[in-house]
Amino acid sequence: MSDDKTVAVKSIQWRDDHVRIIDQTYLPKRKVYNDIRDMGRMWEAIKKLRIRGAPAIGIAAGYGFYMGIKELPESGFQSFWVEVERVAEYLQSARPTAVNLEWVLNRIKTTMQAHKDDPIARIKEVALETAKTIHDEDRRTCKKIGENGISLINKGDKILTHCNTGSLATAQYGTAQSVIYHAHKAGKDIEVWVDETRPLMQGARLTAWELKQADIPMKLIIDSAAGSILQRGEADIVLTGADRVAANGDTANKIGTYPLAVLAKENEVPFYVAIPLSTIDMELQDGKGIPIEERNREEITSFNDSQIAPKKTPAYNPAFDVTPHQLIDGFITEKGIIEPPFDKNFIKLFEG
Amino acid sequence: MSDDKTVAVKSIQWRDDHVRIIDQTYLPKRKVYNDIRDMGRMWEAIKKLRIRGAPAIGIAAGYGFYMGIKELPESGFQSFWVEVERVAEYLQSARPTAVNLEWVLNRIKTTMQAHKDDPIARIKEVALETAKTIHDEDRRTCKKIGENGISLINKGDKILTHCNTGSLATAQYGTAQSVIYHAHKAGKDIEVWVDETRPLMQGARLTAWELKQADIPMKLIIDSAAGSILQRGEADIVLTGADRVAANGDTANKIGTYPLAVLAKENEVPFYVAIPLSTIDMELQDGKGIPIEERNREEITSFNDSQIAPKKTPAYNPAFDVTPHQLIDGFITEKGIIEPPFDKNFIKLFEG
Repeated sequence: MSDDKTVAVKSIQWRDDHVRIIDQTYLPKRKVYNDIRDMGRMWEAIKKLRIRGAPAIGIAAGYGFYMGIKELPESGFQSFWVEVERVAEYLQSARPTAVNLEWVLNRIKTTMQAHKDDPIARIKEVALETAKTIHDEDRRTCKKIGENGISLINKGDKILTHCNTGSLATAQYGTAQSVIYHAHKAGKDIEVWVDETRPLMQGARLTAWELKQADIPMKLIIDSAAGSILQRGEADIVLTGADRVAANGDTANKIGTYPLAVLAKENEVPFYVAIPLSTIDMELQDGKGIPIEERNREEITSFNDSQIAPKKTPAYNPAFDVTPHQLIDGFITEKGIIEPPFDKNFIKLFEG
Repeated sequence: MSDDKTVAVKSIQWRDDHVRIIDQTYLPKRKVYNDIRDMGRMWEAIKKLRIRGAPAIGIAAGYGFYMGIKELPESGFQSFWVEVERVAEYLQSARPTAVNLEWVLNRIKTTMQAHKDDPIARIKEVALETAKTIHDEDRRTCKKIGENGISLINKGDKILTHCNTGSLATAQYGTAQSVIYHAHKAGKDIEVWVDETRPLMQGARLTAWELKQADIPMKLIIDSAAGSILQRGEADIVLTGADRVAANGDTANKIGTYPLAVLAKENEVPFYVAIPLSTIDMELQDGKGIPIEERNREEITSFNDSQIAPKKTPAYNPAFDVTPHQLIDGFITEKGIIEPPFDKNFIKLFEG
């Protein structure tokens, strides 16, 4: 475990009776831990982005849910369940659009209902056990992704990455960043180009911080410098994560991913996407169906509350873009590396 | 002239006996004019980036030079010239690497020396006249570039642009931005996508401000959103300026230009570079010879003195990139639009 600590921080830990998180709002300036002992504090931590990243939010909500139900009266299942639903709704309201949050709460509730004839004290234990299972599963999946990706990395490679796909966003290790951690640990002697990732600077704030913690050599760049780095052959591979992957391999990810894929292709640099299989949405035929979420213009026109652009400057702030599957060389998953044709190989994978 | 005012601000004006500049350090928050009446103030204005942009710096230095010599004793040419050289050196020290500054000072000195047998009072007038000529030439060149570019713009076009290539950087109108001004004035009903242009935000701070002054519809985007805009067919043409163009058409410009050119090609969107002919360096065979200037890491790791990345995060901050000529559809110049093959057509142009 001490070995794990040196390569990848833990964004969230269960410590006997409470949760300890790294408060990401202080990063990168200070590493501050928060000990969270009740549901209200957990709600606040999720709401205020003290913990962020889809898998990490889900894990936090699972423990928060247990904190919310553990003191409930144990007089009867029906009255208990009314309160359980209330707790779940309350937690969901912290980040109403977070799919992982909803998915985790539903999964725990389903498991609890499978135990509805047990004593309520036991049902409460089941909730905590399920939260821990979800936490462990995510850590194991991320570790597997990292280990599976090592084969793509040659000794001395320079890896270019975008956004934060690391420990802070997951239970530990992350997705694309897990490959970076594990390649480093395997002695591959890597260096990392970190895209700052406008507008919210997850690369500069979080990825740079995680790499520094793990002592992995890196250089921070503005997003639009990635092009000339690829052009001059100074990156050997591009690794990103994904928010959603369609059944044909079209990939929605943080804005700026599509340009990287095009620039990688133009300069014959391999472009890989690291994801847990749960990111693949087999219901979605291709990337056309993915709506482009538009975020607040102030994320662009201001920085830290200081105005950059003229007042009332109109802005367009899409949160992600869609990379066509033709530009992707492969997906690094917990089940191995998936190569094209993705439509056929995804089907095989889910059948297998 | 009132028509000109409505489409393009003037970064610098000669007003009988002094210079009026827009102090760009206050933009976009406030439009502050500085009246400059002596060389020391002009030196400070150039040094502190109150006026910036290669052609604008040159123009300002020309007037500053006149201010520096106009009170010199008129007893004899030789002792006068010693002081003239001292003034030129002093002004050059404000931005020692600015080629335009040196070029302007040398041009004025050469013209003065052609009049060395005239009374010194007359030689001083010659210096002012030459400064005004340089100023007028730049304005006329920029106007021509804008007028020549109109033919590339269709009614209702959406134009994507990078950095600031406008009035603030030149006598008036600018280069790529001059095409935007003139297309707007010609009733082409255009809209502009403005790349914010990390790290120094010239797009967000200056281009957005200029377009707002001219009432030209626009939207600000982060640099890495340009890819998905081009992918979705929401831009009809990309227009940029250039810092230096080699004899084969390879083009050095603000970092982020090369990715735009690649993305435009990938999505079959025309990519044009607007420049005065003086930007073409026929001594330079191709883009390989252009050194990549690396700027201060703090431009990336901090914003407005507020730290973004972890302390001591290494960063790589190239100021520009090189776009291969194959990705460029044409150059918009004061002599018309130059199409490929650029090597042959540049030679014809300079012979003609």
